[in-house]
Amino acid sequence: MTLAIDPNHVAERYLAAWNETDAAARKALIEAGWTDRASYVDPLMAAEGREAIDGLIAAVHQRFPGHRFSLLGAADGHGDRVRFSWALGADGAEPIVGGTDFAMVEPDGRLASVTGFLDKVPG
Amino acid sequence: MTLAIDPNHVAERYLAAWNETDAAARKALIEAGWTDRASYVDPLMAAEGREAIDGLIAAVHQRFPGHRFSLLGAADGHGDRVRFSWALGADGAEPIVGGTDFAMVEPDGRLASVTGFLDKVPG
Repeated sequence: MTLAIDPNHVAERYLAAWNETDAAARKALIEAGWTDRASYVDPLMAAEGREAIDGLIAAVHQRFPGHRFSLLGAADGHGDRVRFSWALGADGAEPIVGGTDFAMVEPDGRLASVTGFLDKVPG
Repeated sequence: MTLAIDPNHVAERYLAAWNETDAAARKALIEAGWTDRASYVDPLMAAEGREAIDGLIAAVHQRFPGHRFSLLGAADGHGDRVRFSWALGADGAEPIVGGTDFAMVEPDGRLASVTGFLDKVPG
């Protein structure tokens, strides 16, 4: 199958939205990166639609102020499927949470659904 | 979210179908483990419906005779989502292929869709 989308671009744009603390800028990133019916689910949270996804990201910022998500290694993908691993940590500190996300992507590169799994959780 | 399904059971039953070389037994495993509209896609192959999935497994047996799939570590899951890693190798030999599969599961535990990613490919 031809890969029309760039998995690393998808992952980087996704993590940029997760890292954006400015509400208006984050809203713009979510508009650009997700379909309007997009869904997100992980072991702790679930959201459907851009507004709910935005609220979920804001809640994570409240819980982990000053922390940032970063891509671990390269994203991988084929067809409309992408996977990538990430870490969440304070600047310069050992990451406290890590996970692997699996995404289904529209032909235009926007996220239709993301499923998160946790690889490392706070001890 | 409550996890109604057992990720390890899902993964073991899935790999049992991939390992079953008897056509009738494999058909029964696929009936039990997949919905009738189930889909499978990985970087090399795609199939929709039980019959196509069965054909895809048979093709892998032809390509790798005497090889078996085994679960690597424990399967992980939440809600209706499951992920697990596997290896394919001849008995007693170093695995030649490894991957991580991501599955969406019906409430009755049957697979609705599986996306495979390759972690290790023949050098």
